[in-house]
Amino acid sequence: MAAADRWRIRPGSPLTLAEVDTRGADGAPGDKDETIEATSLLTIRLAELQERLWAEGRRSLLLVLQALDAGGKDGTVKHVFRGVNPAGVQITSFKAPSEAERAHDFLWRVHARTPARGEIAVFNRSHYEDVLVARVTGLVPEEVWRPRYDAIWAWENHLATEGTEIVKIFLHISRDEQAERFRERLDDPTKHWKFRLADLVVRDRWDDYQRAYTEAIERTTTDQAPWYVVPADRKWYRNWAVSTILVDRLERLDPQYPESPDDLTGIEIT
Amino acid sequence: MAAADRWRIRPGSPLTLAEVDTRGADGAPGDKDETIEATSLLTIRLAELQERLWAEGRRSLLLVLQALDAGGKDGTVKHVFRGVNPAGVQITSFKAPSEAERAHDFLWRVHARTPARGEIAVFNRSHYEDVLVARVTGLVPEEVWRPRYDAIWAWENHLATEGTEIVKIFLHISRDEQAERFRERLDDPTKHWKFRLADLVVRDRWDDYQRAYTEAIERTTTDQAPWYVVPADRKWYRNWAVSTILVDRLERLDPQYPESPDDLTGIEIT
Repeated sequence: MAAADRWRIRPGSPLTLAEVDTRGADGAPGDKDETIEATSLLTIRLAELQERLWAEGRRSLLLVLQALDAGGKDGTVKHVFRGVNPAGVQITSFKAPSEAERAHDFLWRVHARTPARGEIAVFNRSHYEDVLVARVTGLVPEEVWRPRYDAIWAWENHLATEGTEIVKIFLHISRDEQAERFRERLDDPTKHWKFRLADLVVRDRWDDYQRAYTEAIERTTTDQAPWYVVPADRKWYRNWAVSTILVDRLERLDPQYPESPDDLTGIEIT
Repeated sequence: MAAADRWRIRPGSPLTLAEVDTRGADGAPGDKDETIEATSLLTIRLAELQERLWAEGRRSLLLVLQALDAGGKDGTVKHVFRGVNPAGVQITSFKAPSEAERAHDFLWRVHARTPARGEIAVFNRSHYEDVLVARVTGLVPEEVWRPRYDAIWAWENHLATEGTEIVKIFLHISRDEQAERFRERLDDPTKHWKFRLADLVVRDRWDDYQRAYTEAIERTTTDQAPWYVVPADRKWYRNWAVSTILVDRLERLDPQYPESPDDLTGIEIT
């Protein structure tokens, strides 16, 4: 079993998020310093694999990152992809949909941002918000959000068939850790812009969101597009886990440098 | 005079690319190792400035990178933006235009990829190809490409007025250095995919391209959207120069962390 499979949610297996550890003592290569060191090596490996994926130009990788507020989505992107050539990585942060986006089906705006062959695309929030926030806040009735699980399943299956490796990660933090991070934002004037009063309204619905996440993950984890639940209270553990998962999936793809489309034998540069 | 102004082409000043040094002995903070060390510090500074630009969310930066084949565009992006949060940087490599792109005016596809407020966008090749390759290969007649200087001028001026800082950099290499890099690509099987026989056809028109670059730079360097000609034969000098220019321009912008749109006084997290 690859190390990354530790966090993988298998199709058909029941999930109780409340019972999943948010600190993640298990499996790390050592203490904090040793794990950070191991993560650095994974970053170098990730950069190599990304270069080969880009050079090969046949397949792509889509990372879907979901978490509650202050769950660490921004920090994960910043740390895990630091060192990877930014030319081959496209990151999209999905906000509340615009009027033009709402005039389309809920997969329209995310489909426009899927990776081209050779690319890595990262969704910071995603189409999953349409079965999470849309459900919990009652933005749409159940007869609208419930069929979306099947729509997501079919769409992701299509992408996978066409050559996109799909990795879906839920950064799992505890309610206490969220409180701690909110307090840090309030205490630091350079972080005030990250904080909105609306975040507290969402926090009040903690249990509802945990339930919505649980069902979304259970209903949409597949062999082609699996969910991983990553303990994210400790940032160094989280960064190591996410790097481990990405390296594992790219190593399975094993992209290769292609030959030039031209015959290069005997060429002299003058 | 800021260090970055060393490479800046002033409006109205004549340019003879053949007379501009491609090695760039001048101005570096020391020898190779010392310059690489200085560049690391600039990378950290660039990451800080990008974070503030992103947080502020009012202005943006567009970096246009142009060079001949093997001029170092890919390597520059990889080295200069390593360490910068990839969530705030969007890189577009423009290839030969698709049929859909050719069905529009030449600024259409680049306009679609300009940075949103808070973002840095990098153009790896750009609308300048429409007065470079389009001119040298006779893709369009002179009555089509000649008016494009004015069109580019007006369009960039508009972007600058709307809050986009525009930085245009020509990576200037010698003909001998290009030969050296082509040979390296031929000698290394993992670099064959970067090499096309068509690159040699372009190389044969070296002087024509130098002339086309000269006129493009002279005709479109403005106070709002200046060109910089960076000596690029030595990669460590080039990386230091590009980092210096970007940090200089962002420091002039001096983006600030904004306050939260909400009143955060007295909030307790429970």
